[in-house]
Amino acid sequence: LERLGTVAIVGVGLIGGSIGLALRSRGLADHILGVGRSQSRLDEACRLGAIDEATTDVTRAAERSDVVVVCTPVDRIADDVLLAAATGRTSLLITDAGSTKRELVERVERNERARQAFVGAHPIAGSERQGAAHARADLFIDRACVLTPTARTPTDLVRRARCFWSNLGCRVVEMTPVAHDRALALTSHLPHVAASALASTIPAELLPLAAGAYRDGTRVAAADGTLWTAILVENRHSVCESVAKLQDRLRQFQAAIQAGDEPALRRLWEEGRSRRLEFEAAGN
Amino acid sequence: LERLGTVAIVGVGLIGGSIGLALRSRGLADHILGVGRSQSRLDEACRLGAIDEATTDVTRAAERSDVVVVCTPVDRIADDVLLAAATGRTSLLITDAGSTKRELVERVERNERARQAFVGAHPIAGSERQGAAHARADLFIDRACVLTPTARTPTDLVRRARCFWSNLGCRVVEMTPVAHDRALALTSHLPHVAASALASTIPAELLPLAAGAYRDGTRVAAADGTLWTAILVENRHSVCESVAKLQDRLRQFQAAIQAGDEPALRRLWEEGRSRRLEFEAAGN
Repeated sequence: LERLGTVAIVGVGLIGGSIGLALRSRGLADHILGVGRSQSRLDEACRLGAIDEATTDVTRAAERSDVVVVCTPVDRIADDVLLAAATGRTSLLITDAGSTKRELVERVERNERARQAFVGAHPIAGSERQGAAHARADLFIDRACVLTPTARTPTDLVRRARCFWSNLGCRVVEMTPVAHDRALALTSHLPHVAASALASTIPAELLPLAAGAYRDGTRVAAADGTLWTAILVENRHSVCESVAKLQDRLRQFQAAIQAGDEPALRRLWEEGRSRRLEFEAAGN
Repeated sequence: LERLGTVAIVGVGLIGGSIGLALRSRGLADHILGVGRSQSRLDEACRLGAIDEATTDVTRAAERSDVVVVCTPVDRIADDVLLAAATGRTSLLITDAGSTKRELVERVERNERARQAFVGAHPIAGSERQGAAHARADLFIDRACVLTPTARTPTDLVRRARCFWSNLGCRVVEMTPVAHDRALALTSHLPHVAASALASTIPAELLPLAAGAYRDGTRVAAADGTLWTAILVENRHSVCESVAKLQDRLRQFQAAIQAGDEPALRRLWEEGRSRRLEFEAAGN
């Protein structure tokens, strides 16, 4: 294990807080600096042991750090990366935990200094709950983390980012920012849109007749609307394509149900069932 | 508690097995007869303590019983009810656990003797798992059970059916068969179709990048395809209407995402979120 000196975590919510707890429980860093805009949330992260020290100033934190991890909402990440890069040492590694990558990597790469310091990352872990209060040191264990370096990212920086995330417990994979956004539109953004749409399609007065299928199918609809609005807008092109694919599939179901076509329905059902069982067989 | 004499459970899978275990653990019946077509499944139900005795003959079982509960797949329930009614005593109560009600109640009511013995029921509890091995004595506790008597169902029979299901732990409500099928198309059948459609929309090669939202959103896609084909076909009119409602909602999401309309997206998201939180607040 490559021991880190000072790590600054920008944004101490569920993800940032979990990174702090994981760094600490694994003894990976000498000092953990929490950066945020809300003093009460910083105080909570301190109290929970996710950070050692709190500040509201990204640039001052970056000056003192060996690694900066940006865990703010996707529409604020590029700004925070640029601020950290502006004052950080030349050896600074900046990474992030954003759910979309293409737009923010493009913005970061327009700045020479930021381009030399940044490796985009997306640890695929989370919860519909928010805040450091729900943070867990084991949140990243065996979760995939997608790194999205480009042809312009220094090789040694990619190696350090790989180390950082795998030391937290992640299975690290590499993809281009575009490939990442297309994949996640299907594997994560679409299931969120589907959960939200399903949640509101059932009228309130029928909720007493809803059970397990509704409960599980709508769990992530409880996630934060501001965070998810930003994700869906940042990745709008791929998300729209994914929603269209789900709509196609629903139309196939509808046609088979309307026609009472049992062989077609059984075939549609089995395709979904075998995909689900394949997912379960992989240890999920 | 009104103690029952002999109860015959026709179909000893997850639901039938759970009824047996609940009757036994609550001491509600003198004798529990299991009826099925597969000797190995009957043996398993005996071994698990869900039934006292097994038989493959519905009519012989009905002759000896005070209550017959039919827990076979929805496309077999009406036949089993008619068989039980043909040989049962005049005091026999027949009820069922089917997920759809309109078609089967209509078929049963065409027979005078069955009409005098049958009260349709749907305990809203279950699992994507099948078989008595997954049965649980507490499956029905605090679950809604919809009774669907008609104007022709004897009042005292409805009272006895109410007792039977509430003694298993259910919150009993009454609805017409048509109202039941419309409601469940939204609260249960639609979430199942959505889960199945979502499961197969994600290509197999991207499954390693799927996490919690996919896992929860597709859980019930693992359910049995033959059972669900029968349910969707029996309730095809209402299920098609429900799928159309979900599609409308997805179109609204799509339009807002495409336009990058953040206020509209936030509004759509909040509607789903508040419905979900209302569901959670009711103790789910």
